[in-house]
Amino acid sequence: MSKPLSIIVAEPDRDRALMIVDSLREAGDNDIRVISEISGLSRQITEIQPDIVIVDITSPTRDMIEELTLATSPLERPVAVFTDRSDDSMTKAAIEAGVSAYVVDDLRPERLRPVIAAAIARFNMFRRMRDELNETKRALEERKTIDRAKGLLMKARGIGEDEAYALLRKTAMNQGKKISDVAQALVTAADLLS
Amino acid sequence: MSKPLSIIVAEPDRDRALMIVDSLREAGDNDIRVISEISGLSRQITEIQPDIVIVDITSPTRDMIEELTLATSPLERPVAVFTDRSDDSMTKAAIEAGVSAYVVDDLRPERLRPVIAAAIARFNMFRRMRDELNETKRALEERKTIDRAKGLLMKARGIGEDEAYALLRKTAMNQGKKISDVAQALVTAADLLS
Repeated sequence: MSKPLSIIVAEPDRDRALMIVDSLREAGDNDIRVISEISGLSRQITEIQPDIVIVDITSPTRDMIEELTLATSPLERPVAVFTDRSDDSMTKAAIEAGVSAYVVDDLRPERLRPVIAAAIARFNMFRRMRDELNETKRALEERKTIDRAKGLLMKARGIGEDEAYALLRKTAMNQGKKISDVAQALVTAADLLS
Repeated sequence: MSKPLSIIVAEPDRDRALMIVDSLREAGDNDIRVISEISGLSRQITEIQPDIVIVDITSPTRDMIEELTLATSPLERPVAVFTDRSDDSMTKAAIEAGVSAYVVDDLRPERLRPVIAAAIARFNMFRRMRDELNETKRALEERKTIDRAKGLLMKARGIGEDEAYALLRKTAMNQGKKISDVAQALVTAADLLS
């Protein structure tokens, strides 16, 4: 790893936990915390806000994937899951829950580093796309509100589109608000008064 | 795999190619085509439209990642890449290019099946999000065009927003077109005439 990472490892098996910690220490000056139960993960994550969470599950069930998702919030941070065995439907469930790396039958020390690098890269890529989607959705909603407000002004005052927009903008500037907030207030008022 | 897959494997090493084919045949009634050079991939992919492309690269360089991206279009189909070694920056480059699985130092027969399942699940999840993003962007653009057209009608005819929209919709129905297409025509005409 190029810079030290803060890592939480959930590993019930003591020998494997030691192996993982050794391997991660060797790979860089990482800050590693090991816990033995998934049930303790959520609190530790809130406290430490780690760069990545590594979870080792011998043989995952659907319930375990759900518990894991609740405990680690894989849409909020990179989560890498190692399992000894997993059928395709479990793999699919984990990936759709947002797990950044899902590795079956391969918890070897030398594999940790590339899996962590891949998990972080994938998480960042996915987050960028999710942010862009949320931003575009927000822009669409704002646009709908602003256009509704413009329409109200055009009809009420008999003015053109450009004038209506200029009026919204001027009001927003005077009040130190966003145009979309002024538009939303106007739409709400019109709905109440009609 | 639950149903047979069409798989293209790019593997320069003959022994490894045989090992991969044996393993994939064992996992299910898959239709497998092996080629030895990445340079032939693009044509084969166009011809076969495989469910997944598997590429084995001993030691990837940036140029090879780029060549691979051009040859396989990893945003259009699941692509799984196996490498013997890879530094973190190469891993990042491959994942940002859209590769669905990037596995370092681990081309073992028993690993193929879970990696393929994970790659397909991840590709589908990513494609759904990308489709939603494109759809939202398109809706935003259409909205802008329709609102611009409404504004033109409201000003030119002295009518309200609802009336302007009804007029666009009626015209679209009469012409068997989409409202956004009629709106685009109106905006284009207004720009030309102004």
